[in-house]
Amino acid sequence: MQKRIYYNHTDAGGVVYHSNYITFCEQARSEYFFKHRIFFENEGYVVKELKAKYIKPAKLGDIITIHTYIKEVKKASLTLLQTITKENIDIFEMEITVVFIKNGKISKIPENHLRIINELKNKR
Amino acid sequence: MQKRIYYNHTDAGGVVYHSNYITFCEQARSEYFFKHRIFFENEGYVVKELKAKYIKPAKLGDIITIHTYIKEVKKASLTLLQTITKENIDIFEMEITVVFIKNGKISKIPENHLRIINELKNKR
Amino acid sequence: MQKRIYYNHTDAGGVVYHSNYITFCEQARSEYFFKHRIFFENEGYVVKELKAKYIKPAKLGDIITIHTYIKEVKKASLTLLQTITKENIDIFEMEITVVFIKNGKISKIPENHLRIINELKNKR
Amino acid sequence: MQKRIYYNHTDAGGVVYHSNYITFCEQARSEYFFKHRIFFENEGYVVKELKAKYIKPAKLGDIITIHTYIKEVKKASLTLLQTITKENIDIFEMEITVVFIKNGKISKIPENHLRIINELKNKR
Repeated sequence: MQKRIYYNHTDAGGVVYHSNYITFCEQARSEYFFKHRIFFENEGYVVKELKAKYIKPAKLGDIITIHTYIKEVKKASLTLLQTITKENIDIFEMEITVVFIKNGKISKIPENHLRIINELKNKR
Repeated sequence: MQKRIYYNHTDAGGVVYHSNYITFCEQARSEYFFKHRIFFENEGYVVKELKAKYIKPAKLGDIITIHTYIKEVKKASLTLLQTITKENIDIFEMEITVVFIKNGKISKIPENHLRIINELKNKR
Repeated sequence: MQKRIYYNHTDAGGVVYHSNYITFCEQARSEYFFKHRIFFENEGYVVKELKAKYIKPAKLGDIITIHTYIKEVKKASLTLLQTITKENIDIFEMEITVVFIKNGKISKIPENHLRIINELKNKR
Repeated sequence: MQKRIYYNHTDAGGVVYHSNYITFCEQARSEYFFKHRIFFENEGYVVKELKAKYIKPAKLGDIITIHTYIKEVKKASLTLLQTITKENIDIFEMEITVVFIKNGKISKIPENHLRIINELKNKR
């Protein structure tokens, strides 16, 4: 997924505000489901933990690319590696574990989600 | 209501990003209800229209004050005047009309809300 | 400009948080300049006033389109009409006046900007 | 630092959007400096890495508390432990390393900052 950096993503330091990179990664995860016509109702993936590394900043007007790789698929959780690049250079890296929640409870990841997730796995 | 300006409120122009002033005003409206122990469930006030005037910018570290005045109370809607000041000088002004929605439908503003709203009215 | 609605744009009411529509319109204005390789340095357009009308909400996963029309071009300011549609239906409308600022002072809109702005004018 | 959860912090899942907890922690760090009358000019702390753990969600209207502890002070960087509690229960934990930047370059943390940082250290 590609994204343009706009004013609202930046801060007075002149670069993208740090938690926005984490937001961009979530948008890339959601886009992947939306694109496959999976819309969440009373369910969704909730963040359990994440580790992020900030390498270089992105600036106003930049175009960045968010890359998503599957690291591990468990019954009710997913661990992903997400990186952000700018002109093919890594500027941000994150490992994130999300848990599938349905009607407020941790639940098995549905079959139709797994099909999509496995596609992503093979594409790397 | 007083608020400090932090990095995430600012943009690469070095001042508060314009839609954040509108967000700050909403927080002041919500705070007013929360403070009176009114929490919304399947209901709430939805913005119908607003007119905003930007007078001076606020910067990182500034402390601003949001003032809320009642302009008109109708059966299902409220028109408010909200201003933001910095060291007693007006920096932003907004007139906003919000509509009360319950279970997805426009509804009469409840009695306990009206009591609080009228208090605010008399305080000006 | 088309945009997808993600989680961070929505709020606990289940729809897009009201000031985000105003942010989306700013992104469409900026995109127009970025696309023409105009990047701002110590200069930019600052919001002076706006009037917004909320017609229908947008929801998680929706794809919206932001339309920008020129209403009036003055020496140092622009008045634009911006609308947001979802499946060709208007959901939001805004009239906004922005002022051109260079090195902290109101300044004449540069020639290369005017060329782009006029293109937009004729396209309507 | 205490904070109220407002609509703009929440998402369509009904709880606080995950990257906002990371923003709240940055606000607590900044507040600490602002409160001691340190305002940044062409300098500031830039995030290098962070590890976050999401324990329980916060909801609209909740009041949360952000706690900041010093873990390690180096010449040009700081490692902090930050936790967020709701009614004295931990809901979020983060270890974060920030680097001091002055005029675009990694720099020694100034003496007046160290004084404040050490105060925080002893308070735990």
